[in-house]
Amino acid sequence: MLDQGAKKVVLRLFTYGLYAVTCAHDGDANVFTANWVTQTSFDPPMVALSVENSSASLPIILASGLFAVAPFAAGGRELAGALGRPRARVGDKLAGRAHTTSRHGLPILAGALGYVECRVAGRLATGDSTLIAGEVVDATLLHEGDPLTMREAGFRHSG
Amino acid sequence: MLDQGAKKVVLRLFTYGLYAVTCAHDGDANVFTANWVTQTSFDPPMVALSVENSSASLPIILASGLFAVAPFAAGGRELAGALGRPRARVGDKLAGRAHTTSRHGLPILAGALGYVECRVAGRLATGDSTLIAGEVVDATLLHEGDPLTMREAGFRHSG
Repeated sequence: MLDQGAKKVVLRLFTYGLYAVTCAHDGDANVFTANWVTQTSFDPPMVALSVENSSASLPIILASGLFAVAPFAAGGRELAGALGRPRARVGDKLAGRAHTTSRHGLPILAGALGYVECRVAGRLATGDSTLIAGEVVDATLLHEGDPLTMREAGFRHSG
Repeated sequence: MLDQGAKKVVLRLFTYGLYAVTCAHDGDANVFTANWVTQTSFDPPMVALSVENSSASLPIILASGLFAVAPFAAGGRELAGALGRPRARVGDKLAGRAHTTSRHGLPILAGALGYVECRVAGRLATGDSTLIAGEVVDATLLHEGDPLTMREAGFRHSG
């Protein structure tokens, strides 16, 4: 029998950063805040992230086969919080926020430290979310700076 | 064409904790240090980690279908470093290190803050490593304390 309290406390000892994940397909684009992100391979360089099955971005990522991961800069707590709200509730999160377009056509928010563009290489159903692995096909460094961490932000998205 | 320098710098902006991952099967057991670890689902609670294809632990995990993830405690840099060396090079890493056995038969190092035991639910080939997803089937909190982060340890295992 799983001890729900211990499960929550131990999983909240895991350490995370905060990332703006962006996607675009066929005229539709979105951005969301993710913390369940990790590199998974050096050769080739690969990254995996877990995306809620109910999210607006999952079908966009799967249709295009592309996503970008941009670590938020330290101090970016407010932006990370705003972009973490579901599009179904808050509407277009890119409207009114300065962004450029990456080589692969993905929106990149102004102020990002940098980003990797990934081509979807595999997926795994994991409970309420889908784990998506992508190969890093492009990388751009925009600014020097430290990344925003979950600890700095004081957010909770684990447990 | 992937900019190798930018790829390395951006991937090193990702934030990680440090974890002792343990496994056991048929009289063989091992422990290794991992940072490519993330929760992937709330319901059911699931965790994924990336394991090098060449590691001694991968076949043990796949044979038993079980692994435990224990966040190192802050200050545990030296232990995390020692357990990060390949068994093929340094021999039995559990010998001489105090540990108990979990409910599912996995070694748990004394001094761990706590641990989750996971049953393998899926795997994905990702380059030089295998991404393994497991459902959390047991969780134990052992000590209060802060987790060790890659930033505190000053290790590099990304990029």
